[in-house]
Formats: sequence, C-alpha cells, structure tokens
Amino acid sequence: MPSDPTAPFDLGLLSPATAGHDAEVSDDAVVDALVAAEVALVRAHAALGVADTALADEVSRTLGWQGPLTGCRGHGVDAASLAAAGVADGNPVIPLVGLLKERVPEAAAWLHRGATSQDVLDTALVLVAHRAVSRIADSLRETDAALTSLARTHRDTVAAARTLTQHAVPTTVGVRAAGWARAVRRALARLEAAQAALPAQLGGAAGTLASSADDLGQETAAALPTAFARELGLAAPDAPWHTRRWPVTELGDALVQTVDALGVVAADVAALSRTEVGELAEGAGGGSSAMPQKRNPVDSVLIRSAALRAPQLGVTLHLASALAVDERPDGAWHAEWPALRELLRIALGASAHAVRLTAGLRVDPDAVERNLRLTGGRIVAERLGRVLVPLIGRERFAELLAGDGELGPRIRALPEAAGLDVEGLLDPAAYTGLAGRIVDSLEEQS
Amino acid sequence: MPSDPTAPFDLGLLSPATAGHDAEVSDDAVVDALVAAEVALVRAHAALGVADTALADEVSRTLGWQGPLTGCRGHGVDAASLAAAGVADGNPVIPLVGLLKERVPEAAAWLHRGATSQDVLDTALVLVAHRAVSRIADSLRETDAALTSLARTHRDTVAAARTLTQHAVPTTVGVRAAGWARAVRRALARLEAAQAALPAQLGGAAGTLASSADDLGQETAAALPTAFARELGLAAPDAPWHTRRWPVTELGDALVQTVDALGVVAADVAALSRTEVGELAEGAGGGSSAMPQKRNPVDSVLIRSAALRAPQLGVTLHLASALAVDERPDGAWHAEWPALRELLRIALGASAHAVRLTAGLRVDPDAVERNLRLTGGRIVAERLGRVLVPLIGRERFAELLAGDGELGPRIRALPEAAGLDVEGLLDPAAYTGLAGRIVDSLEEQS
Amino acid sequence: MPSDPTAPFDLGLLSPATAGHDAEVSDDAVVDALVAAEVALVRAHAALGVADTALADEVSRTLGWQGPLTGCRGHGVDAASLAAAGVADGNPVIPLVGLLKERVPEAAAWLHRGATSQDVLDTALVLVAHRAVSRIADSLRETDAALTSLARTHRDTVAAARTLTQHAVPTTVGVRAAGWARAVRRALARLEAAQAALPAQLGGAAGTLASSADDLGQETAAALPTAFARELGLAAPDAPWHTRRWPVTELGDALVQTVDALGVVAADVAALSRTEVGELAEGAGGGSSAMPQKRNPVDSVLIRSAALRAPQLGVTLHLASALAVDERPDGAWHAEWPALRELLRIALGASAHAVRLTAGLRVDPDAVERNLRLTGGRIVAERLGRVLVPLIGRERFAELLAGDGELGPRIRALPEAAGLDVEGLLDPAAYTGLAGRIVDSLEEQS
Amino acid sequence: MPSDPTAPFDLGLLSPATAGHDAEVSDDAVVDALVAAEVALVRAHAALGVADTALADEVSRTLGWQGPLTGCRGHGVDAASLAAAGVADGNPVIPLVGLLKERVPEAAAWLHRGATSQDVLDTALVLVAHRAVSRIADSLRETDAALTSLARTHRDTVAAARTLTQHAVPTTVGVRAAGWARAVRRALARLEAAQAALPAQLGGAAGTLASSADDLGQETAAALPTAFARELGLAAPDAPWHTRRWPVTELGDALVQTVDALGVVAADVAALSRTEVGELAEGAGGGSSAMPQKRNPVDSVLIRSAALRAPQLGVTLHLASALAVDERPDGAWHAEWPALRELLRIALGASAHAVRLTAGLRVDPDAVERNLRLTGGRIVAERLGRVLVPLIGRERFAELLAGDGELGPRIRALPEAAGLDVEGLLDPAAYTGLAGRIVDSLEEQS
Repeated sequence: MPSDPTAPFDLGLLSPATAGHDAEVSDDAVVDALVAAEVALVRAHAALGVADTALADEVSRTLGWQGPLTGCRGHGVDAASLAAAGVADGNPVIPLVGLLKERVPEAAAWLHRGATSQDVLDTALVLVAHRAVSRIADSLRETDAALTSLARTHRDTVAAARTLTQHAVPTTVGVRAAGWARAVRRALARLEAAQAALPAQLGGAAGTLASSADDLGQETAAALPTAFARELGLAAPDAPWHTRRWPVTELGDALVQTVDALGVVAADVAALSRTEVGELAEGAGGGSSAMPQKRNPVDSVLIRSAALRAPQLGVTLHLASALAVDERPDGAWHAEWPALRELLRIALGASAHAVRLTAGLRVDPDAVERNLRLTGGRIVAERLGRVLVPLIGRERFAELLAGDGELGPRIRALPEAAGLDVEGLLDPAAYTGLAGRIVDSLEEQS
Repeated sequence: MPSDPTAPFDLGLLSPATAGHDAEVSDDAVVDALVAAEVALVRAHAALGVADTALADEVSRTLGWQGPLTGCRGHGVDAASLAAAGVADGNPVIPLVGLLKERVPEAAAWLHRGATSQDVLDTALVLVAHRAVSRIADSLRETDAALTSLARTHRDTVAAARTLTQHAVPTTVGVRAAGWARAVRRALARLEAAQAALPAQLGGAAGTLASSADDLGQETAAALPTAFARELGLAAPDAPWHTRRWPVTELGDALVQTVDALGVVAADVAALSRTEVGELAEGAGGGSSAMPQKRNPVDSVLIRSAALRAPQLGVTLHLASALAVDERPDGAWHAEWPALRELLRIALGASAHAVRLTAGLRVDPDAVERNLRLTGGRIVAERLGRVLVPLIGRERFAELLAGDGELGPRIRALPEAAGLDVEGLLDPAAYTGLAGRIVDSLEEQS
Repeated sequence: MPSDPTAPFDLGLLSPATAGHDAEVSDDAVVDALVAAEVALVRAHAALGVADTALADEVSRTLGWQGPLTGCRGHGVDAASLAAAGVADGNPVIPLVGLLKERVPEAAAWLHRGATSQDVLDTALVLVAHRAVSRIADSLRETDAALTSLARTHRDTVAAARTLTQHAVPTTVGVRAAGWARAVRRALARLEAAQAALPAQLGGAAGTLASSADDLGQETAAALPTAFARELGLAAPDAPWHTRRWPVTELGDALVQTVDALGVVAADVAALSRTEVGELAEGAGGGSSAMPQKRNPVDSVLIRSAALRAPQLGVTLHLASALAVDERPDGAWHAEWPALRELLRIALGASAHAVRLTAGLRVDPDAVERNLRLTGGRIVAERLGRVLVPLIGRERFAELLAGDGELGPRIRALPEAAGLDVEGLLDPAAYTGLAGRIVDSLEEQS
Repeated sequence: MPSDPTAPFDLGLLSPATAGHDAEVSDDAVVDALVAAEVALVRAHAALGVADTALADEVSRTLGWQGPLTGCRGHGVDAASLAAAGVADGNPVIPLVGLLKERVPEAAAWLHRGATSQDVLDTALVLVAHRAVSRIADSLRETDAALTSLARTHRDTVAAARTLTQHAVPTTVGVRAAGWARAVRRALARLEAAQAALPAQLGGAAGTLASSADDLGQETAAALPTAFARELGLAAPDAPWHTRRWPVTELGDALVQTVDALGVVAADVAALSRTEVGELAEGAGGGSSAMPQKRNPVDSVLIRSAALRAPQLGVTLHLASALAVDERPDGAWHAEWPALRELLRIALGASAHAVRLTAGLRVDPDAVERNLRLTGGRIVAERLGRVLVPLIGRERFAELLAGDGELGPRIRALPEAAGLDVEGLLDPAAYTGLAGRIVDSLEEQS
C-alpha cells in the first residue's frame, strides 16, 4: 500500500452514504473559508474606517473574495500543503497567514490583525457549516414535499400497523408518511434556527480583543466583531465564544436530529421492503455482485448507516464543549473540527439520499391489502373485543381469536353475535380512527 | 453478596454526583406519574363530557390526584412489585392498569380507555421530566446569579489567560466568570424551551386513536389528546408521537448542553485549584481517607464526572429515535427510558453541585497576582511585539523574550526603547482589552 | 412526586431488560464488597505476620467475612446512609472506614491501614464485577447450549437467507443458529479472560504504597498487594493501577461484546417473528394493554434495548481511562463507577433474557418453507445463472427472472434447457453449500 | 466554495492529529487491498488446483500482486472513479469486479468466483487494518522504549504526586513514566492479539459458500477460505463471519485502548507543562499566531484530541455488530467501514505523535523540586500523622497543618517532638515507598 503522504486520504470510497454529496465540506472548501475569514477581517477594519478601503479591495481581489456566506476562490492556497504545514503548530491558520502575507505583502500589517488562529478557524468552520446546512435544508424541503404528497395520495390506503414487530391494528400509509414528514419538518426548523444563530468568532489571543483595543481603541474594537460578522453574513457574537461551544453543539444536535428523522423513514422502508412484506420498494434498487434477482433498498441502507454513526459524532462535540478548559483548551477544541465536518458530511449524504428515496418510493397496494388480511381479521381484535367481550366474555373471546383461521365465520357462528354487522366490524377501513385527520392536519401545517 | 431480588438496586452509592438530588426521577416518582397519567385520562373523558364527572372525581380522590404537573400520591401502588410485574410484557403499564382497576373497580371501564401502554408511559416520563427540569432550572438560575455576582466582583481582577495550558495574555477573573454565566444562561433557555414543548402522548394502539374514535366519535376523539394534556399541564401534541421522538431528544440535547456548561466551570475550577495554581478554591473541599492536609475540589470533580457521562446518554436517546421503526418499535423505545432518567438524574446532580460550588467559590487574589507575574512580563509579549518589533526587529525581539528573567530591565537596557513607558507597557492591567465591557454586557443581558 | 431522599431511586421500573437480574450489582452488594475489601486488608496483614491473626479473625467474624470472591454479610452497614455520607468527600469509603472502626474498635489501627479510598472502592467494584461476570457466563453457557441444540435440530431445515432485507440464496436454520452460538462462545471466552485478569487494587495514597513501606518495610509492603488479592480470590496486580484502567475497559469491552452477540440473536428473532415472516416465535410472548391477539417477542425487544445502550457505557469507561490524569484523576475515575455497574447490569439482564429466549424459541417449519418458495425459484437465481447464462445469455436470463411468476415452467419452456433437471436445479435444498459442515464444525469445537 | 465532486474531500486539514500519518488507510490503500483480495481469490483457486496456475500468475502480474499482507500496485484502478461508481449499489466491489474483468478478460470467469462483495470488502479492510496495526505497533514499541528509558533515568527523581488536582504525597517521575509504559505495553499486547486474529472473509452470497460448493464440490469449497487466507497472510476464518463482527470490534476495542493509554501520557504532560507547574516540556513546542513567547504542548494537545474521539468510533463498530441482522445487514455493515478506518487513522496519528512526544520530553528537575517543596512539608502529612498524632493528638495535628507556613519549625517547636529526626521525617525522598521497585519491575518485564 502506498506510503505517499500526499495521497488523497478519503474520496468517499468507504463512505457510499456520503460520497459525492460532500463538496461543501471538503478540504478545499475549508481553505476557501479560511481565506474568506482572513479577507473579511481586513474588510471589517476598512468598514470601520481604520484600514484603507482601497487596500481591502486589493486584498479582496487578490484573494478571490466572493461576498457573504461564500468562500474565496482562486486564492492559490493549496489544501494539501496547508494540511501538512498545520501539523507542527496544531492548526493550519499559522502557516496560512504566512502564505497570505506573501501573496498580498502590501496588506501584511492588516492580515490577521488582532486575531488568533481560533478566530479564523472557528469562523471558517461556521461558514462552511452555514453553507452545508443550506444544502441540507434544501434536501429536507424536497423530502418533506415528497412525503407530504405521498401522505395525500395514500391518505386512505389502509395498512397494517405494526408494534413490536407484530400486526396491531389498521392504520394508513398516509399516516405513516405524515409522521415521517412531521419529523423532517421539525428537524428542518431546528436546523434553520441553529444555522441562523451561527456566530462569527473574534476574540483575539484570549477572548478580550486586547490587541485590537490596544490598536484601535475600545470603541472600534468593540464594533469589530459585528463588522466582521456582517462581511461574512454570519450572526454577530454576543462575546467571544472560544470556550463556550454551544453554537457548535446546538448545530450538531440539530444535525443528529435531522439524521434521526431520515433514519426512521429508512428503517420503515427497509422493514416494509422485506421480501415477505413487499409494501414498499425504492425507485432505484441496488444490485448484487452475486445475485442477479436482487433489488436492494440501497438508499435506505445508506441512510440507516448514517443514522448509526451520527449520534456518536455529537458526543465528540459535547465532550469538546464540556472540556473546554482555560481560555482555549488543550485538545478538546481540536477534537471538534473533524467531528463537526463528518457530521455535516453525514447529514449532507443522508438528506441527499432521502431526496432520491422519497421521490422514487413505490407503494404496492396489493401487498398492503394482502398483509392487512393476513391475520384473518385479528388486526381489528381491539375493536372486536369492545363489541364481543360484553357478549361472550373474556375467556370465549380469547378462544375465538386463538389459532390462525378467518374470524368472520367464527363470529357469525356465535349465537350472541346475531344481528351484528360482522363484515362491517371486520372491515379494517372502518377502524382507522383519526388517520384521515392526522394526514389532513399535516397539510394545514405546511 | 445478596441475591434478594427486592434489594434496592441503586441508592446512589456509586453515584455521589447525583445521590440525594434525584428524588424527582426515582421509581416512586415514576409510579406517581404513571398513576397521574391514568387518572388524567379519566378526567379528560369527563372534561369532554363523555365520562361522568363524579366518577372522575372519585378516581382522582382514590388515586391521590394532585393537579397538573404533579404525580399522584397515596395511591398504594408499590414500585417494586410493579417493576417485577412489568418484565413479562416489557413494560409496567399493563400490570398497573390491572392494579388500578382493582382499586377503583367502579371506574374500570374508564381507566386506560382508548390508550396503549406507550401513551401512559411516555406521558408519565414527560411529566417526571417536566418536574425534574423545573428543579434543574432553579439550580441554573442560582448558579447564574452566583456567577454574575462573581463576575461583577472580579470585573477588574486581572489574571493570566491560558491557552493550550500556557500563559497567553492577561484577562480578568470577571471575564472568565461572565463566560461561565453566559453558557449557563444559554443552556437554561434551551432547557426551558424543551420543557415547554414536552407534549402528552395519546395515540391509542398504533397512533390513530382508533379505539377512542370508535368509542366517542371522531370529534370527541380528536379533542381528547388536548384535554388530556390540559389536565396534566403539558403541551398538546400535534399528533401522536410514538415513533417521532424529538420531544425526548430535544430535551436530552438541552440536558447535555446544561451539563456541558457546568462542566466547563468545573474544569476551570479544577485546573485553577491545582496546588501550583491556587487561584480558586471550593468553599467546602472534600477530605481524604489517607491525607489529612488535602482539600479536594469535590464539587468540581463530581460535576466533571457528570460531564463525562451525559453525552453518551444522549446517544442512546438519538439511536432510540432513529431506530423507531413501525408504529411502535422493537427495542428502541425501551432503550430510551433508563437513558432519559439517568440523564435527568445527572443534570439534577450536576446542577445541585454547581449551586454549592458557585456559592462558595473563593478567589485568592494573591495567587492570581503571583501567577500573573510568573513569566517576568511575557504575559504581555503580544503587546510588546507590536511596540518593539518595529524598533528592534523580529529576531532581537525573540532573543529578548528567551529564557526566564524579568523583561523590564532588559527592555530598559535597549537603546531603541528610550522614551518608552516600560512600566506601563508591562502592566497586565493595561492589556485586558474589552474585559470590562464583556462583563458589563452580561449584566445588561440578565 | 416525593422528595424523600431515602426513597429507593431505582428498582428497575424503567429497566425491564435488567429488572430482577441485577442483585449482584445492587448497592447492597457493593457495600458487602466494600466491607470485604476492608476485611481482606486486615487479613492480608495477618497472613504476612504483621497483624495479629486473632484480631483478623475477630474482624472477619464481626464483619461477616465469607471467604474469597464473596462479599461480607451481616456487617450492619446500611447502603442508604453510606450513599448519603459519601457525597461530601466524593466517595463512600471515607465514611465507611469510620463506621467499621466503630464496629470493631479494637482493630481500628488495622482497618484501612496503608490504603487509600480508591484501593478499597476499586477492589470492591472488581469483586462485584467478578461475581456478576460468573453469573453472566453461566447464562451464556446455557444460551450456547440451547443454540447448539437448535443448530443440530435444524441442521438441514432449509430457509431463505436475506441480505439487505431481500431474499438472497438458501441457507439453513442450523447455520443461522450456529452463527449465533459462535458469537456467544467468543464473547464468553473474552469475558472469562477479562474476569481472570481482574486485579485487586492496593497502592496507598498515590500508588507507591509509601505508608505501608514506612510501616512494614519494603519487603512486606511489596508482598501486601498479592496477599490482599489472595484473600479475595482476585488476580495480583503487577503494580497499582489507579490511573491505568485497562482492567476496567477490557472488562467493559467484553461485556459490550457479550451484549452485541446477544443483540444479533434478538435482532434476527425480532425480524423473523414479524407477522409476515413468522419463521420464529418466542416461547412466551408478551401481551399488550390494548390488543388481545398480540404475542410480542418481548425477550428480543428487551435484549435489543440492552444492545442499544451498552456500547455508550463502554465509551464512558474508555474516556475515564484516557483522562486518568495525575496520580488519581479529577472526575474521570468517578465517572467510571456508575457506568461499569450499569454495563454489568445490562449484561446480566440481557444474558438472563437470552437464556429464556433461546430455551423457548420455536421454529415454524411451514413458514420457513412457505417463505422459501415465495420468489418462485428466484432464491436460487445465483445457481440458475451459472447454468443458464451460458445457454441463453445474460439478457434473456434477466428477462427470465423478471416479474413474479414461477420460474419452473419458464425454464422448461426454454429450448436450450432441454435435458436440464429443472426440478433439481430449483431445489433450494440442493443449494445450501457448506451449511451442514458449518453446523457440524460447531459441534466439534464445543 | 467549490461544488466539484472530484475535489479531494479530506487531506487532513482539519485533522492535524492524524494528517501525514494515515497513508496506510487512504482510499488508494483501500483500492490496493480490494484488488489484492480479488487476486488472492484467483490464486487460492489455483493453489487448490482448480484454476490454472499460469492464469493466476497472469492475473497477479497484471494487477500488481505484491505477496501476503500487501496491497496490489500498478493495477490502474482509480479510487475516485470507484468511489463514485460504488454509490449506486452501496459498495465499490461491484464496479471493481467489472473493471478488473476488463483488465484481465481472459480470467473473467475466475475473478470474484464464488464470492460476494462483502467477502472482498471485509477482507480488504482486514488487510488494510493489519498493515496499519503493524505501523501502530512499531510506534508503540518506540514509545515504550522511550518511556522505559525515562523511568530508568528518573527512577529516583522525587516529585509531588497529585490526586484530585491536589498535592498528595511524594512519588517519583520514574513511577509516573513506568505507569505510562505499562499501559502502552498492555495496549500493544492486546493490539497484536487482535491483529493476529484478523481473518479473511469468504462466505459467498449468504455465508454458505453455496456457489463454490456447487462449482468445486464440498471438499474443495471447504478448503477455499483457508487457501484464500494463506495467500493474504491472514488468519483462516472458522466460518464466514458476515454477521459475527467480533474481529472488527475486538480490533476496535484494542485501538481505543491504545489511544486511551497514549491519552494518559498526553493528559499528564499537558497538566505538568502548565506554566505554573513546569515540570515537563515537549521537545518541540508549537507556536502561536498571536503570542510569540508561547511554546504549546502540541503533541499532547493532538493526542488528547484523538483520545476524545476514539471511543465513540468504537460505539459505531459495536452497534454495527449488535445490529447485524439477517445474513447480511441493512445498514449496520455499511456504518462500520468509515468508523473502522477513522479509528485506525486516529491510532496511527496518536501513536506517531506519541513517538515524537516521548522522544523529546524534557523533565525540569528544578521545577519538580520547587513544586515538591511548595506546601511547606504537607506533602508528607500522611507520614507526619502516623508519627505525630500518637504524640499530640488528632486535633493539634490538624492545627499544625493549618495555614501555609513551613512545618519544620512548627514541629521542632513541639515539646513532644523532641528527639524526632524532623528533617528526615520531612524528607520527601524518604517517603516514596516502593517507587524504585515499581520502576525496576518494569525493566524486568520488558
């Protein structure tokens, strides 16, 4: 195996759940955001009137400034070299600043002015996260629309509800889809709230902005973080948050909640795609290297793999938060970066696969109907009990249900059941409760 | 060791971080809440005019109803027996319903009517959680007040800031305390939001309220969850949430965030209590079984132990959410109960210890001052660099800093430094940037 | 809800997966073990000839010494009081020593001699763990025996193998059971190895046995840990392991592996018990509070809930190990105790349920056969491809498989298939490869 | 930010703890191993006499076979293309087989013969893991040697032991280093055991080797997995382990244990490098973007960041194991790949940094001595108590210890202390217990 240290480590070969959906969080994207943070700092100084506007424009031009919420482009900073150079000091910002000063020597005094490496790296990660969340949110909206449409279409498609793996009572395909949609919407709302709260970071060496205050005076220094955030399109911080990591953990929690919501869809699709169940099928099933007949529910499988990984990355973010000792911590912060990126990557991938999954999902009404009839009427045993137990007692009712046969003839054979509308009583469609309303209320809320 | 199955499993012997602070989440408290959920269901039927009000009153009286947001008392249901009886079916609600029907036989037809065991257990856990969160929130408010006061008192107590374990630049004790307070407030806000969103659960066998609709008609059935929630003082659910577990995970995330915020306080107190540092000391240190001189920072140690445990319980909640397959899942739901309880317990304990820790926390200004002077002035090296590098160049500046000696004489010996206010330049108090403002803005936000 | 601090926190009401199976790890059991550790220390001093044997006997008698690998009994130390008293100093050993000295005042000088509280608590937890592991191992042996018997009985019961939820090729029920058994055996071996390595802890205040050496001389002090371990039946430590926590993490890893192995059995049983599949059924299914017809796979559900919780407790153990700073750490050690106990509890419960599950597991051969035939012969598509693709090409073979109908008539209608033994070719029993050997080799290894 | 899907995702920019140390687990390395697995399968058929040896040689030559425990080279398969192509079916093996058949068309019938994609991917991951573990083990051996040497050098360098952050009693630098070494050795032993157990995977479509048995007969098919493993230098599997994932979790557990052991070294170095403590310093400290005087303990910080991440990856492996349902699971297996790779990467990086850290670690004996004297003799309070409490009682002894002053004069002023060798009593070097033996026994064990 190669020992070439410049070999790309990870192109997604072992991450089919995320491969091809993660450009927003690639190393190149991170470099673009790091450069943008440095440029924005110069621009903020100019916006406050302390740096020369022409100089800020020159820096912006040379380093490829693209405006708020966007990384720089064409800056010529190479991610691989920066990654290698960043090991010695433990982060890539120190070598980056050197490179940028070489590229725009006339602005050397204004680059990174008053900042510490954590200011730049935190801000860049927030910027990368902001963009990734926008992509994820788009996917969630598409997924919600597909699920809402599915719920509407199958509002009255009666199906077996299953609890603890066993047929329980009837429900509808629409209720199930509406539940999926509700969870997706909730996750989306939480994700958007976390995104909107994402603040720029600017605190200087230890969170007091001492260098800036020394340099520019307290008033200007106090205005700098907000000006910096405005250039980038991020929220202004209430104070430096070097060791208060809730912006990261709240985002992380929302990302995990997103993958949870998609995980439920995938779990249900996988279960209901089983050969014996067959109620659902993915639009584009995956093939097998050995078995030509197989159509695997690949999107569900990949989303499920994401759902099994995401919460643990949330742990790393929370530990990094809880162990953020001193004015900047001794390892906790460094643990946060790859965990946040991988969590974004997982949510990007899972949501992209969810779009495909929900757009193509097929319901087999025949299988739904066949399964519903599978227990010979026991699917409405709860209802039967309410009617029959008063007539024949609990014991005889239990005998009635025992075994596998159709309940209709057995009930009709009961003298006590004379006059009952047995067919109506056994009709699953007549025992779906508020299923229709639950679907309809989803529409109203959308 | 005993094999008595009725021996209390856990009184907190191995959990000093939580022992004595967890009555809200004890098994007894859970039973009280389970009974309250069953009573509330009868009351909700009465409130909607379908059950007899006198009967509901009788049930309330017999089973010790205490009103909203409170468990029942004096109902005579024994937690240990219920725990044992709950194993066979996998949850304690089934035997509970039997017991309650025995206790109020005249209301047997109305007890548990239309409900499934998950409705009652979820609602009871939500009720228990709601109360526990109120207790935690009280502790956080006390903690915040103590920290805000500490920040105010030490607004201008200059101290060494440390990054990656090393002295960096000056900061103030006030800034540090203000940062702690900000994180506690944010966690509190998030906790209160999650608490307010905690919904009652009522969906019937599979989330369609089929039995209630069959029994009472769709209109009344549709009103039932809201009436049920109102009796209990909980939020009304938008729809049954048997397999959409965001109310649990959002609460869990907020609890973990709470413990994170307290964990940072504890981490800093532990670090700054080190014998060599000595800047902080807990009011009541713990003793040692072997070393009479020791005063251990026990509250910090216990809070830290909580912070190392909490995030992993959040994982269980998220996995339970993401794997909530079918209309009620095959294990994921069951994993949620003990994890949620333990997480509540940890947050109850950590916040109680934080109250004690922050109320008694002592600052040793002499130690703060001594440490600040420890590096012979290098604590303001960042500032010195801005002034001296232009005068003597980067190389000679590095030589100036090298070694351990006091910088003052060395600087004064520089011909280029003639005319500089060296004392002023070296004064840490003159290099604390926006420290005062950061403290003051905390007050304004409170 | 009660605020009585002496209310038992946890009797298992919210932990049906473990309730009733956790006496070995109850607070009472921990107290018994703590007392045993203190008694063993006196006995070790006597065994080395430095304490009076009669005194050691007296201590043993008064405090209910039961011999190696057993906690003391009848010592009169109350777990609840000790739990409450242990909060102030952060562990229960300090108040315990006081209590024991009151009970055996004549031995006061010899109780806890040379030890630190961590010595006693670690040793007690190891003792508790050792006993719990013996119980778990017994359950695993029973489970293995049941599974091995199941594998033998169903060595040749041909069944559909499923990959990514879809029918793949034939396998046998025996192969599946043999796989379960193999994983259980491996976990058992690992658990026994971790148990055998569990060392007593004896290092004194900071792991140098300074007090004992000062007291008894180096030779005797050096012999003390081994003598102490011998009294308790535990492994002798190579050196104090206050901050080297591999004995705990290795045990934890083996416990998680145990629950993993049982989790797979439960996952398969739950999946194959689905109403539509019906190949397996638990001997004693659980009931429902709402649906009289249901037989839930409760043991599987509870084991699955355990499997979703166990790995996260392992994380706490590993973090406690990795953060074991200084000579005794500032929170990490305290996080370990409840995590280890809960992990033992989960493994005790899961293995007990596995015994019941595997003892009563029923195979429905009709359902197995019905499912095997469900795809009209496509279950052997891999085999058909090897025979037919050379005859009719890949494209026509794909057409042949398309749709749902029986493949037999379609193949017989192919001119190119004349002369083929179509029935034999389609016989699933003729395409089970090494299934029989895989079962048989299990027997040989047992 | 770029949306180019072929942009390398991860070069290590956000992972300074691992960057530059992960070539063994790069995507290129995985492709090399995948190709090696396919080649080895052809070679195994030839070794058993069923495939033509010349053909196997031709395949080996064309695809760059390098022998056992080594990936193929120069095979021309591009990782990025394969990653993209692997999404549709959920794994990269299906497109890989197509590519290889194009490259060696004459061997098309023998490539992938009898295998399923999981056979090839599992085997490749095992191969990659095997090589990575060899590298990690080398680093651990170097680290152990450095620590053992450090322990020997500082066998008698007396230092303050700290428990719960407070000075406790004396210890030696040697004992501390010996403890680090012991934990590293234990982890190494466990890692080597897990490596030696890593089996090749060969089970065919569903773990029965049905295709091979149909093709080659039972005897030859039964010999195939062992022959396959022999070509690769891996352990022969006792049976296919598609859903019995202990080889992966046992390796994962050992990797986490490895990082735990290194994490303790890093935690201690970080704590003892604090500006106020100053007992240890890394050979090559990292710089700061803002503060020229700083020398950050970068290796420790990066190792600590690794230690905070590793255990959670272990959770993913265990969940993947516990949820391995059916004959091949519906998401759990896919979750395993990136988690195992990242865990290997973390262990590679942490162990490489540990080599550098321990090789360059500097002890400052003056600081050690200064800290030891910091409490005016209270560091030996345990010893003083044993001598003085009998003379002056517990209360007066407590008064003696109170405050900060030097204890020597106070003790000498006690009438009861006349005749005591106060200087000797206060000498920390005379109260280090078995410290020397603990170091020496390390040497004996190495």
